[in-house]
Amino acid sequence: MKRIAILGSTGSIGCQTLDVVGANRDRFEVVALAAGSRVADLIEQVRAFHPKLASVRDPKDVAEVRAAVGAGVHIVSGAEGLLAVAAESGADLVVAATDGAVAFDAVFAAVERGITIAVANKELIVAAGELFVEAARKSGSRILPVDSEHSAIFQCLVGEPHERIAKLVLTASGGPFWTRDREAMRHVTVADALQHPTWQMGTKNTIDSATLMNKGLEVIEASRLFGIPGERIDVLVHRTSIAHGFVIFTDGNVKAQIAPPDMRLPIGYALAYPDRLPGPFDVDPLAAIGGSPDGASTVLGFERPDTERFPCLGLAYKALARGGTAPAALSAANEIAVRAFVEGGIPFEAIPAVIEAAMDHAAGRELTLNSVRDADRRARERAEIEIRAWTAPTTR
Amino acid sequence: MKRIAILGSTGSIGCQTLDVVGANRDRFEVVALAAGSRVADLIEQVRAFHPKLASVRDPKDVAEVRAAVGAGVHIVSGAEGLLAVAAESGADLVVAATDGAVAFDAVFAAVERGITIAVANKELIVAAGELFVEAARKSGSRILPVDSEHSAIFQCLVGEPHERIAKLVLTASGGPFWTRDREAMRHVTVADALQHPTWQMGTKNTIDSATLMNKGLEVIEASRLFGIPGERIDVLVHRTSIAHGFVIFTDGNVKAQIAPPDMRLPIGYALAYPDRLPGPFDVDPLAAIGGSPDGASTVLGFERPDTERFPCLGLAYKALARGGTAPAALSAANEIAVRAFVEGGIPFEAIPAVIEAAMDHAAGRELTLNSVRDADRRARERAEIEIRAWTAPTTR
Repeated sequence: MKRIAILGSTGSIGCQTLDVVGANRDRFEVVALAAGSRVADLIEQVRAFHPKLASVRDPKDVAEVRAAVGAGVHIVSGAEGLLAVAAESGADLVVAATDGAVAFDAVFAAVERGITIAVANKELIVAAGELFVEAARKSGSRILPVDSEHSAIFQCLVGEPHERIAKLVLTASGGPFWTRDREAMRHVTVADALQHPTWQMGTKNTIDSATLMNKGLEVIEASRLFGIPGERIDVLVHRTSIAHGFVIFTDGNVKAQIAPPDMRLPIGYALAYPDRLPGPFDVDPLAAIGGSPDGASTVLGFERPDTERFPCLGLAYKALARGGTAPAALSAANEIAVRAFVEGGIPFEAIPAVIEAAMDHAAGRELTLNSVRDADRRARERAEIEIRAWTAPTTR
Repeated sequence: MKRIAILGSTGSIGCQTLDVVGANRDRFEVVALAAGSRVADLIEQVRAFHPKLASVRDPKDVAEVRAAVGAGVHIVSGAEGLLAVAAESGADLVVAATDGAVAFDAVFAAVERGITIAVANKELIVAAGELFVEAARKSGSRILPVDSEHSAIFQCLVGEPHERIAKLVLTASGGPFWTRDREAMRHVTVADALQHPTWQMGTKNTIDSATLMNKGLEVIEASRLFGIPGERIDVLVHRTSIAHGFVIFTDGNVKAQIAPPDMRLPIGYALAYPDRLPGPFDVDPLAAIGGSPDGASTVLGFERPDTERFPCLGLAYKALARGGTAPAALSAANEIAVRAFVEGGIPFEAIPAVIEAAMDHAAGRELTLNSVRDADRRARERAEIEIRAWTAPTTR
């Protein structure tokens, strides 16, 4: 039995992780769950999976959970609660599925103790990936990707010599504006941007997919997870999101991973690694690579990305080349810019301009957990200033 | 330095193996070469690669080679020569690239001594794969595939748990008649059949590609090499021959291998395994998966095969299901039927009928090197009888 702890258990990835665990109870045991404010959902999860430890964000929710689940479960809260779930629950594997920076310290502590991390928290690896990877190297912890693209690359690299990697290729759906020309993109509305061709996901992720910043952040994440510089990581637009990533080896051979766009597959892979789950599976070979079961054929198409119409992708490469806290600043500024766009504060085309100005202002060379936090804060402040300048009548 | 011996050094695979060795002389050393009747080519190869042992088919050619290459090289001939090159040359790896059954005993002896075999000889694995795989298991020898489809599967399986294989998928170009309807296929000529859309290859292989028997033999080969039954091996038609094979795992994830249709890639992989060659390589990601370097996109299309129009594919599955010497009989009868078609003795549509009758006549349950030889001989004899019946005026 592999003992699993989940940070962010009531979010999308957390719930899908519990789906996978529930379908494989002979393999996985939930030892600890940490949620934010969705207390009712957490109570339901505790009743279904019987962890011995559960954590909520707010200390005042502890009594409610304790009363609901009974004395057998230890209920904790806040930063200490996250730390207990991640590093002191006896978990073999911690699923890091919180948003933003809230669980940085807890995950870092788990890595330092040699615990395997299944990381679904993009910000964590983008902002401080080098620190986490270095700590994992020292402790013997493994960092397993949960993002479908990085899981694809990871799967293609199993058993392969690292020094024979020529290039990593991440695929991108292209988002809702892939077929729009530059002029039409000036008139993008929030409603337009919230349509995504393949994946169902939250507002922030959906806008990131529309700007291709999503893919830019994934390029940075791939660089950190696999130790490959930005100039050897490429993006190809693949509208149907069936092939998630490729590895091009130095001998000219390419390996690709293909799977339906269902997050339970990369989650299940991370949980079971180095084994794989036994099934169930669709054995129709065309269905497995994107055709319908009754279809006679399938087509996988790939195009080059376009950093002219999608400057956010180029900004991510710029952050990666600059290093230090530039990726942390990029990620933080992007969060503020996206929120401003969704709230009607800036037009779509202002997103990259706000991010670039904030990143240039906030990025520094030094990389520590403290400098990352500082760059994050400074980038957010500067992004807010840029947004006010954009909306102030005198600047238009 | 890895010491390489080549059986069939003057054939297409043999020459391409020497191309790869020549481009990687810091890694590979040729210790022995065996050729058939192309004595002048062999002399040139010996002068270029300095093996200490070389073999020709006919004893009367020994003196000519000896005179041409000087005293430093030991020259042998015939079955004993093949055995010396394969099993007594001190090779770490033997490339088995002869046609037909000529090198069976020599390769078997090498396997029994624990020497790694890179096998390009399809007949060997189709007819007697179980015997070779069992001998390799006992001796600790490895059998590495050189066929591009089997190399693809092998690469996708590196580091993966064997018991989590759901299905193997081999791709097929579809050959020159993929788009012809059944009626049009009745009028196929030899000239039509000798056109192949992607690969350059010999007459026998080209006709096998037109009938899809090529793919049928590869299904049998895959079953033997990877220990997976026929019902879990599928074929998909993929006209551009860029993706060579897939593995569908039980957890729903699929891994595919992609490479330009150049035999030096799977040969290089087999020679370097478990490492990969360091390059040179094309780093344009679209070019690596089938687009032109200046192209903006690429498309990989896949269709289901059709055993109605291509009955040879179904015959191969039938032989695999029957087991014993049925695959050996299938392969031998196919050789005779193809030759009869090329020489104008039977129409294209008679090929499967001849093969099926001969296989049904010659196949037996017992599987030994002797029973394989016997089934091979009986299938050839029966195929000749069927061909005469087809061409005799009274049967038409």
